[in-house]
Amino acid sequence: MRVLRVAVLGAGYMGSAVTFPLCENGVKVNLWGTWLDDGTLDACASGVHPKLKKRLRDGVSLFYSDQLARALDGVDAVFVAVTSEGFAPVFTRFLEVFEPRDSGRGVPILTLTKGLLRRDGDVKRISETAEELFRGRFGRHPFSWASVGGPVKAVDLSREVPTATVYGTRSGDAEKIAESFGAPYYRITTCPDVVGVELSSAFKNVYAIALGICDGVYRSWAPDSYHNVRSLVFTQAVKEMASIVVKAGGAKETVYGLAGVGDLHVTSSSGRNRRFGDLIGGGMTAVQAFDLMMGEGETAEGYAALEHGMQLVLRLLDAGDGSPIEKELPLLAKLHEIVYRGRPLMEAFEGFISTQGNRG
Amino acid sequence: MRVLRVAVLGAGYMGSAVTFPLCENGVKVNLWGTWLDDGTLDACASGVHPKLKKRLRDGVSLFYSDQLARALDGVDAVFVAVTSEGFAPVFTRFLEVFEPRDSGRGVPILTLTKGLLRRDGDVKRISETAEELFRGRFGRHPFSWASVGGPVKAVDLSREVPTATVYGTRSGDAEKIAESFGAPYYRITTCPDVVGVELSSAFKNVYAIALGICDGVYRSWAPDSYHNVRSLVFTQAVKEMASIVVKAGGAKETVYGLAGVGDLHVTSSSGRNRRFGDLIGGGMTAVQAFDLMMGEGETAEGYAALEHGMQLVLRLLDAGDGSPIEKELPLLAKLHEIVYRGRPLMEAFEGFISTQGNRG
Repeated sequence: MRVLRVAVLGAGYMGSAVTFPLCENGVKVNLWGTWLDDGTLDACASGVHPKLKKRLRDGVSLFYSDQLARALDGVDAVFVAVTSEGFAPVFTRFLEVFEPRDSGRGVPILTLTKGLLRRDGDVKRISETAEELFRGRFGRHPFSWASVGGPVKAVDLSREVPTATVYGTRSGDAEKIAESFGAPYYRITTCPDVVGVELSSAFKNVYAIALGICDGVYRSWAPDSYHNVRSLVFTQAVKEMASIVVKAGGAKETVYGLAGVGDLHVTSSSGRNRRFGDLIGGGMTAVQAFDLMMGEGETAEGYAALEHGMQLVLRLLDAGDGSPIEKELPLLAKLHEIVYRGRPLMEAFEGFISTQGNRG
Repeated sequence: MRVLRVAVLGAGYMGSAVTFPLCENGVKVNLWGTWLDDGTLDACASGVHPKLKKRLRDGVSLFYSDQLARALDGVDAVFVAVTSEGFAPVFTRFLEVFEPRDSGRGVPILTLTKGLLRRDGDVKRISETAEELFRGRFGRHPFSWASVGGPVKAVDLSREVPTATVYGTRSGDAEKIAESFGAPYYRITTCPDVVGVELSSAFKNVYAIALGICDGVYRSWAPDSYHNVRSLVFTQAVKEMASIVVKAGGAKETVYGLAGVGDLHVTSSSGRNRRFGDLIGGGMTAVQAFDLMMGEGETAEGYAALEHGMQLVLRLLDAGDGSPIEKELPLLAKLHEIVYRGRPLMEAFEGFISTQGNRG
């Protein structure tokens, strides 16, 4: 089999981490840095990746932000690995220089970006936005897409700790090429439920805030003795994510697998959104917590995702039987009150817990 | 409403912890200690509970092992809260002195004991064993039963940290009385899937060993960087528990709720079975790990539960389409190889991970 070459757009944590299993598998990688990644590429060129604290593999070629066309030249697939805020601008630039194949088959586009996007006053999944932008440029040319989910922390992946991931795709081309990216420590599973994978990936960041708040609230008054409430919140988060995915037309099984349970587990154990919640649980306002983290160079994506997610959910509930969110998704409702309306923590949390009786 | 009185059989962690929400709710509690609990009762009578490190509430009356009949006199419900090994002997003694009501309505029996029991060369759920013993003594008298599940760590509960639990019952009497036991920090939900609750409660102890092994294996070579593999194992455990419950006639939704996901979360965060696995992951044999913990007064119930669970699962698979366990439940199969056959850890674990490809 000929050597595959892929472009990875974004040289941050995840874009750089995925180059390790790709190289392990003999794939050649064009790692393109956005206009924010110049310093990262400089550091990689002369030594280690500054975030992953590790030298990239030999199969990786570096491309600066003004070299996008060269980075895309002749590649067999493209990974998009920027933040959710960066997705639309980067994808728009990508489409300007991308040359789709003449063969009538699409070049698979696989996104590692997780979240929801606000566009034209509405909230959309990443694949919805991507397909709109793609169709605007290429009309009916095949749109071969996969949304990547599952419990994949970038640092762990780059250290070659065993990791499993799920590629949500309805494209045979994307599914086929994804199978050739797996390595012994990077197991790829596929599923056709793109909606379920994308919404799980977005909402786990939201619910990880709730688990972080748990940590912040209970750590001080019940150190090492609040596992019950943390497990209750975790379980309720899974239940609500399943409810949201089903309302949006996805499958709840997706939530019970790697994309939902798995990703929520990893994110609520160690991610930035957990920490954002932890700071709020410890007494900060959401704005204070967000700013503190920004000052350290970390973005709590769940902060925006909570607001976007709320808007999406309210639309879904309106389109359904009009049930109030407090009844359908009590944890999400309370979380929004705490984070966006500054409702006192314990009052909101205990309100959530007391709504849990006799509902299985 | 008249004051309720319940007997709690077993003065260990869980039996003593449940007295807190009961008393909070105005219930009078007769706490009966088994023949192993004499020292515990002595300590409680003169001060604090030695395991919970806390004084019991005023509504609790203490009864020694030779006072079982008095402890049961006129009670409205009975909790059984002994270890799984202690269940059959204690329940047999209970039946010898128990006087069922003449009204034709059963006195609800609620068990906090989790696990599987070996009887007559076969492995059974606790409610199966209990009903057999009950019928042998009382024939067709109403058997009013609930199996209690969910993420309830005893120490957390006794400290009045918010906790939610699920009572699996098909008895209206048991369901009704259970509702009167809830407190603001002890939310009771009910569900009719007794099989699902019992098997979730038993198998979470088994799968918590796998998560402990993860900790033991990866902590040393990837400190704070093995969240991906831990989340993968957690997700696979949930999937396999759902598969087992469905094969046994239960509902997979039970596994995705408090009884399964919730209880696995709490047990794999902090329980004795997690630690048992951790010691094995660190290089001990299962026997060494079990003995070390016994020496500290702690029983890793998952050790026996794994062997019993394996026997149950093999019977279910035989009765089904005869699929091999390695295909249906690869994590359970590898775990059994590691714990009972001393298979090298990494070989077994990597074998598990490499079976995970392309199966969602």
